[in-house]
Amino acid sequence: MPELPSIEALERTGSAPSSGAEGAVVRAVFMPSGRRGEFTCGTTVLAAARNLGVDIDSVCGGRAVCGRCQVHLSEGEFPKLGIHSRAEHLSAGGATEAKYRRIKGLAEDRRLSCQATLLGDVVIDVPADSQIHRQMVRKGADQIRDLQIDPLVQLVYLELDKPSMADSTCDLTRVLQRLESEWGLADLQADLHFLRTLSASLRAGESYAGDWKITVAVRARRQLIGVWPGLKEEVYGLAVDIGTTTVAGHLCRLGTGDVVASGGMMNPQIRFGEDLMSRISYLQQNEGQAGALTGAVHKALNELVTQVCTEARVDRRDLVEITLVGNPTMHHLALGIDPTQLGMEPFPLVVDRGFTVLARDLGLDVHPGAHAYFLPCIAGHVGGDTAGVILSQGPHVGEEMTLIIDVGTNAELVLGSRNRLIACSSPTGPAFEGAQISCGQRAAPGAIERVRIDPATLAPRFKVIGCELWSDDPGFAAGIAGIGVTGICGSGIIEVVAELFLAGVIDDTGRMLAKGHDAKNHPHLLPRGRNVEYVLWREGERLVKVVPGDIRAIQLAKSACYSGAKLLMDEMGVSRVDSVLLAGAFGSYIDVKYAMVLGMIPDCDLTRVRSVGNAAGTGARIALLSAAARTEIESVVRRVEKVETAIAPRFQDYFVAAMNLPNAVDPFPNLERVVQLPARRA
Amino acid sequence: MPELPSIEALERTGSAPSSGAEGAVVRAVFMPSGRRGEFTCGTTVLAAARNLGVDIDSVCGGRAVCGRCQVHLSEGEFPKLGIHSRAEHLSAGGATEAKYRRIKGLAEDRRLSCQATLLGDVVIDVPADSQIHRQMVRKGADQIRDLQIDPLVQLVYLELDKPSMADSTCDLTRVLQRLESEWGLADLQADLHFLRTLSASLRAGESYAGDWKITVAVRARRQLIGVWPGLKEEVYGLAVDIGTTTVAGHLCRLGTGDVVASGGMMNPQIRFGEDLMSRISYLQQNEGQAGALTGAVHKALNELVTQVCTEARVDRRDLVEITLVGNPTMHHLALGIDPTQLGMEPFPLVVDRGFTVLARDLGLDVHPGAHAYFLPCIAGHVGGDTAGVILSQGPHVGEEMTLIIDVGTNAELVLGSRNRLIACSSPTGPAFEGAQISCGQRAAPGAIERVRIDPATLAPRFKVIGCELWSDDPGFAAGIAGIGVTGICGSGIIEVVAELFLAGVIDDTGRMLAKGHDAKNHPHLLPRGRNVEYVLWREGERLVKVVPGDIRAIQLAKSACYSGAKLLMDEMGVSRVDSVLLAGAFGSYIDVKYAMVLGMIPDCDLTRVRSVGNAAGTGARIALLSAAARTEIESVVRRVEKVETAIAPRFQDYFVAAMNLPNAVDPFPNLERVVQLPARRA
Repeated sequence: MPELPSIEALERTGSAPSSGAEGAVVRAVFMPSGRRGEFTCGTTVLAAARNLGVDIDSVCGGRAVCGRCQVHLSEGEFPKLGIHSRAEHLSAGGATEAKYRRIKGLAEDRRLSCQATLLGDVVIDVPADSQIHRQMVRKGADQIRDLQIDPLVQLVYLELDKPSMADSTCDLTRVLQRLESEWGLADLQADLHFLRTLSASLRAGESYAGDWKITVAVRARRQLIGVWPGLKEEVYGLAVDIGTTTVAGHLCRLGTGDVVASGGMMNPQIRFGEDLMSRISYLQQNEGQAGALTGAVHKALNELVTQVCTEARVDRRDLVEITLVGNPTMHHLALGIDPTQLGMEPFPLVVDRGFTVLARDLGLDVHPGAHAYFLPCIAGHVGGDTAGVILSQGPHVGEEMTLIIDVGTNAELVLGSRNRLIACSSPTGPAFEGAQISCGQRAAPGAIERVRIDPATLAPRFKVIGCELWSDDPGFAAGIAGIGVTGICGSGIIEVVAELFLAGVIDDTGRMLAKGHDAKNHPHLLPRGRNVEYVLWREGERLVKVVPGDIRAIQLAKSACYSGAKLLMDEMGVSRVDSVLLAGAFGSYIDVKYAMVLGMIPDCDLTRVRSVGNAAGTGARIALLSAAARTEIESVVRRVEKVETAIAPRFQDYFVAAMNLPNAVDPFPNLERVVQLPARRA
Repeated sequence: MPELPSIEALERTGSAPSSGAEGAVVRAVFMPSGRRGEFTCGTTVLAAARNLGVDIDSVCGGRAVCGRCQVHLSEGEFPKLGIHSRAEHLSAGGATEAKYRRIKGLAEDRRLSCQATLLGDVVIDVPADSQIHRQMVRKGADQIRDLQIDPLVQLVYLELDKPSMADSTCDLTRVLQRLESEWGLADLQADLHFLRTLSASLRAGESYAGDWKITVAVRARRQLIGVWPGLKEEVYGLAVDIGTTTVAGHLCRLGTGDVVASGGMMNPQIRFGEDLMSRISYLQQNEGQAGALTGAVHKALNELVTQVCTEARVDRRDLVEITLVGNPTMHHLALGIDPTQLGMEPFPLVVDRGFTVLARDLGLDVHPGAHAYFLPCIAGHVGGDTAGVILSQGPHVGEEMTLIIDVGTNAELVLGSRNRLIACSSPTGPAFEGAQISCGQRAAPGAIERVRIDPATLAPRFKVIGCELWSDDPGFAAGIAGIGVTGICGSGIIEVVAELFLAGVIDDTGRMLAKGHDAKNHPHLLPRGRNVEYVLWREGERLVKVVPGDIRAIQLAKSACYSGAKLLMDEMGVSRVDSVLLAGAFGSYIDVKYAMVLGMIPDCDLTRVRSVGNAAGTGARIALLSAAARTEIESVVRRVEKVETAIAPRFQDYFVAAMNLPNAVDPFPNLERVVQLPARRA
């Protein structure tokens, strides 16, 4: 949106006030845009606004039915504009407006701009909720870039003439002609389901809801996808993130962008394998079974729809648009494409571009005319989820050298700025998700998620998911009653390993050593040959502990992550980055300092390292609400350069060198300003 | 197609022969187009042809795989062209061509134009079977207008490079890039099913059939709908006529237009009502039951596919395009649209324009990417079947004032010429189909279809369906053994009524009278009060006869038909027509003279009255084979004017006046030249 002039600026060009007499010319100024013009007395405010290109919403096209076009008259003297804006300079509300005010309600100071006519000079405020392309409001951690709401599906209310022997034009043509003459929508195609429901919608009784009054849903100014009798106020969209482990979605009101419900569940494909490679292996060994994995994810999507629609009390048939992000394997399986080839060099995708299908072709039980848009994939291991991350974080917009790491079962990394973007995927494995860790578990109630260790005594303090208290707070035992301490999740394992390293129990090669403590008689150490194990929690015979193998798993994972980042930095020709964004559920909970202590991410000013939550899901939501965002991400993705870690010799070198803690590649000057790292060996 | 110059005409502009030396310029003339040009020695014949816009087919793009580009060298001296065309002026067949000749076979005098290169001046014949846009051959009664085969679905054979780490372009982009660079097909969209089968087709083993060699089906130069490993030689289309009574279809080879199988069956909707109005009444009384009628017709379509594919030994998944014609009620039900409103004034259609849907959205078990195109409807009672009749008969092409009558359960009439077309529907009822006739039956073995009556003795001669002999031929009794004489079908009832009228047994008001015969002792007359019945066949107690009520039914039907025609003629401002075409199954069997004796059609030179068979089905076939034909009929239909018989006062007047035999409206001068009509009453 261009910047809007202030009213002061506008007033500099003021002129004499005009008279309000019938037939005379009157002046109207619209705020906040500041657009203004002269109109014949008697022009409706909506018509004047349209004439000036002022952004006022209307679904009913000026019939006082939808109430979207409300405005407010600014009363008072605006000397520099030469305007004296007075209440009586708008026509009094007539019977039509009064009926709307009575039935639907209208604030005392508001007018329907389609009913109020100009009788004299006025200054009109267009409130945010009356604008079509309202700005999306930023909120909380789940940030969304400045976004103008412009969903692909638009509702249009029509009042049509009934057919007669003199004019028996067919129903469809009747609708199309009106859409062209009244809304400028030409050459629309009708979906089959639209045709099947058109007649009944037009002829839905003689009630207010029907009687040749309908609302149609127009998609992308090209296709008629839905029709309802009477005025349809809202339709909905669903933004879905299909992760390897979880499927999560936000149900949004398309007109406003509001999230009305969120939901999620385990990805039921887990029964075919915990991670991507094991699912692809399953398919390699069970040819033709991709349909079973596809069926599982489609079933999950239908359950997700049930979940969010139930929560928001929305009819699932009002869900008219879906966007989906997922890694390439999830992307292909959701489309019903066998992803086997993604497991074999050279890992080619079957399809990479943004792709739209009918939701019904995926067996989704939503509006029959609904479409599902899959964000584009970038490379064989870098999918639509990464495209979503890029779309929501906008590394391609600014000048900063930004590194984004989306940590899931694999890590996808993107590095760059407006000048250039590079991406890769790094095989971190599921250790960051708590898998392959002796006492590891998924982030769920009972899992240790935060850990602090006294470097002198090695006594731990920790927090578990489901309880707000630290383990040394009074009342902790009561707080975890019914929850227990069941294991360590990804963020917990990061923190305990980092704290043990800072306490000297883990050396820079990753060995767990007693290091001056008497392991045999220590409340938190257990000797194991020349090494030790570390006990976080003890409840009778049951121990929640960290063992040497856990350190090895974390070293492999963090080294893979770091090496991917370093590879991208080499490719980019930079030795440092301006900021690091950690995306994904894991990224949301991690203390970024500990990630750097492990050497998982390259050195960076710690104030410029932050978690950005489920950025992939946010990207799906942006694509749901903005047609322009889809065009944007498809264009950006086309110019993202791909680096294949699997065949880059340097990646292997870094991978070995980065196993050390923090690692033997990066000097970490920023980190050393914040924590006291143990002395490195010569 | 523009008219092509003869070779003699071309020779008028001849010049000196060129040498055949390497690097030299040589001349090639292509027949039958006569196009010619100069090319560098070594150019392939196919490239030369393409360069000149000569129409030579190729699916494989010049890889000696498809064999579509065969040509023949015309040897000899062409002095006026200055060309001495010699066998050695084409390169000898190399290994590639030899392999094709060995494996697939190639006539001795034929060459693959993609392999043969120009070494000297030549005259090249392009045989009809090597042309892309070959002309359709007229055949028999089922005439088809001159038609250039140009189906919407085109097969393209591609040989692609395998992906590598250096080029891991996704499968889809790989295909799209090649289609654009090699075939000029840009901006193609891929159907979801195409994506789902692409990978497996590309990777179908290392055999000749696979190995990154595929054939894709491109629809309307816009969409990728199918993919097969290796070279796919043929795909098929189905042209369907959904009648109220029967569903019939032709399976065509899309590349050539050949009909490879035809089939048909009763429309299973008959259990919901014999005619259109009774089915619409059923829907009015059983709200929400349209789905049952739709399901019935979709089931029939699937059975039809089974029938024709079994007969032609074609895999139903090779059926990639379907065209359908039907009256408005059948059209709507086949699309899944409730047609109830077609039964109520003002009879508005839900949709009239030509409409394409995915066959899978109709539940049709054919190729998953197949589309179904419904020819446009004209008005509430004039459907896509009439559009098909217009397309096949072309009244909009010539100057003649043509009347077309498509007789089914209703009669649809079209009148006009290239300047103007008018159409209407007339409620003839099912009498012409043998219904509502005492001994009437559908056209099936055993039904009397031809009748002659001796005016002196009233002795009948007749033929029954299933036997070639007349009833007074020797051997008739043996000929009908196992068939019997079971009733009278539509054409039979027309003839017997007309013959009885000519014999004086029926008077001009339609009464059946003894008229000088002794009804009580007559072998063929039975007295009934003041009237008589006429006995055609007697077998023990069982009689096949004509009764006064039958005459009344035929009078109503023929009067409706005539009145519709007369109404159109009034509207057009003409008192006579140049020709009358009778379409439909009934029209195929009727003796047109008898139709005029009854006064069913307006007077016309009898040599200009003819049956044109299932013209609606032929129209569906034309639309199947020619994209241009779809554009043509959609444009023609938009300018057809509709006349609604139900509200035209003149129609009622004509309807009453035309009840007489032949009728009291038309003077029938042409008819009176051919038959001796009984004297009219004053």
